[in-house]
Amino acid sequence: MNKTATFYHAGCAVCTTAESKIMELVDRSLYDIEIVHLAQNKDRLDEAEKVGVRSVPALVVDGIPLHINHGADLAELR
Amino acid sequence: MNKTATFYHAGCAVCTTAESKIMELVDRSLYDIEIVHLAQNKDRLDEAEKVGVRSVPALVVDGIPLHINHGADLAELR
Repeated sequence: MNKTATFYHAGCAVCTTAESKIMELVDRSLYDIEIVHLAQNKDRLDEAEKVGVRSVPALVVDGIPLHINHGADLAELR
Repeated sequence: MNKTATFYHAGCAVCTTAESKIMELVDRSLYDIEIVHLAQNKDRLDEAEKVGVRSVPALVVDGIPLHINHGADLAELR
């Protein structure tokens, strides 16, 4: 069964660029990618923060947050 | 022929975590990854800076720098 990596974003330009690169890079035979728009799904903000996401875009893999460039701080999305 | 993605780092703990995740995530049937230790290869600093790398760890794909978390600013490595 594939692992799931979660990509959190907020629809910003920095997020979009990162998303397109991540979708190209990641080995989809090993990882499914769930894409979460945090500005549109504010009910997921707590979950993202709990795993250590501080800004978007960020990819969470195996519980480890990889912040990819910097679009917006999580606090700005609340 | 595979594309090459270049992972720039400086041997720091943040870099090591990011490197291990990136090596797991990236589809190696599409991308070769070149790993460059910038603190040990300062002659590569100019090249990294020119493509837009501002801090390590960073992965450069198709000329686009993805800064992954934050270990050290490039200026600190000079």
